[in-house]
Amino acid sequence: MKPELLLSRIRVVLCRPSHPGNIGAVARAMKTMGLSDLCLVEPRAFPDPQADARATGAVDLLKSAKITGSLPEALADAFFVVALSARRRDLGPPSGQPREMVARLLAQAEHGQVALVFGNETVGLTNDEIRQCHAAVTIPANPEFSSLNLGAAVQVMSYEIRLAAFAGMPAVADAPAAPTPARLATHDEVEGLYAHFETVMTETGFLNPAAPGRLLPKLRRLFSRTRLERDEINILRGILAATRNPTGHARGKPPAA
Amino acid sequence: MKPELLLSRIRVVLCRPSHPGNIGAVARAMKTMGLSDLCLVEPRAFPDPQADARATGAVDLLKSAKITGSLPEALADAFFVVALSARRRDLGPPSGQPREMVARLLAQAEHGQVALVFGNETVGLTNDEIRQCHAAVTIPANPEFSSLNLGAAVQVMSYEIRLAAFAGMPAVADAPAAPTPARLATHDEVEGLYAHFETVMTETGFLNPAAPGRLLPKLRRLFSRTRLERDEINILRGILAATRNPTGHARGKPPAA
Repeated sequence: MKPELLLSRIRVVLCRPSHPGNIGAVARAMKTMGLSDLCLVEPRAFPDPQADARATGAVDLLKSAKITGSLPEALADAFFVVALSARRRDLGPPSGQPREMVARLLAQAEHGQVALVFGNETVGLTNDEIRQCHAAVTIPANPEFSSLNLGAAVQVMSYEIRLAAFAGMPAVADAPAAPTPARLATHDEVEGLYAHFETVMTETGFLNPAAPGRLLPKLRRLFSRTRLERDEINILRGILAATRNPTGHARGKPPAA
Repeated sequence: MKPELLLSRIRVVLCRPSHPGNIGAVARAMKTMGLSDLCLVEPRAFPDPQADARATGAVDLLKSAKITGSLPEALADAFFVVALSARRRDLGPPSGQPREMVARLLAQAEHGQVALVFGNETVGLTNDEIRQCHAAVTIPANPEFSSLNLGAAVQVMSYEIRLAAFAGMPAVADAPAAPTPARLATHDEVEGLYAHFETVMTETGFLNPAAPGRLLPKLRRLFSRTRLERDEINILRGILAATRNPTGHARGKPPAA
């Protein structure tokens, strides 16, 4: 199933949020990760300019947010519901870590609507509310200060959801910047660089050919830790050449830059 | 190494933060995940009641935060520096996803101080700032709205850091054979190498200061792909020094080899 379709089936439900600024932060967090279905159960103040301010470019999620008078109403069409819980509860549903619970949430989203439920900033979820959920998730935290801001908690969960939804998908926007094959230096070109270093080091007296020590092996070790590009070899050899002919007319030409 | 010790070696650096409320949110996000070392580079307004309000129980991090006038000052003792970058850059350091880069960050924290650098809310990091970092990380996001709030971005990264630190980390993810702790070059030493290159390139006419092109960024990109050792910097600077004084009595002494 397409990741975007999966994401469209995940509802974020906020139970009795106190601070409208937090609602805005939640909308922003959701939208950055591609979520859009926000539901507010008995918000204390909404709509509110503070919510709009904190949402920045995600005001559209606030405008389309559903408002309900109870949690069951918010969950009516949901097949699977996960509660965020700051602590383990003896009597609650089975609890797990974000990565594990997000995997379950997405597996269920293949079948239809699912929801992630967050409690009030101060008191969390009531026992009655948490009993309406099929599973609970706890974000690992510093035991001495485990109170994540509501928007920050939604950001962490939404991030895990996006990662999981797009896992195995080709190329997220930011694959590591690997040099393209055409630009990598050949073995011969790298050897040419070492030879050039050796020549300059010998001519300047930095390297004594009769007692070379480990200077050259150490240079090789340094440059072999990375894959040199042709362009980079041209720069290094250009610098070396210029030092031997410091008239401003270096033999080595800097590459088009 | 104990997770708590690893976490204590991870500094969060905010470059020119505009909104004191965000600084408070960052402190709270850090503390929930067990981080404590916060450094502010040229904050617009700090200390500030808004920062205290958003920090809630993490005001202690604000009180102990360091304030510097420049990024190099904030990074002086750091062995490995990762920049948060919202987009790919052609000439930046190698970029990766949070999980991968956090593994590298923790592997390096085994050796000493490391840092994670966040840019200004509106303009991000300048090219000059990002060039001072060894690697970059991009949080995967909705391509149509990828702007995470600063506190939320710190929350996501801190969460990944905590997960990794407590998961029997550091992982083997860090490929290049790790040099031993004492021999790694500090940020200042690496910057000294770049300055030396620039001087020699300018003196020899290879670099035209009026039209430097992309020579220096390309050198930085090359050397930031590997972790330079102090010994290697001594060799490279020795070679550079010898070319300016090619009498056989180079100013730069080759290290014991």
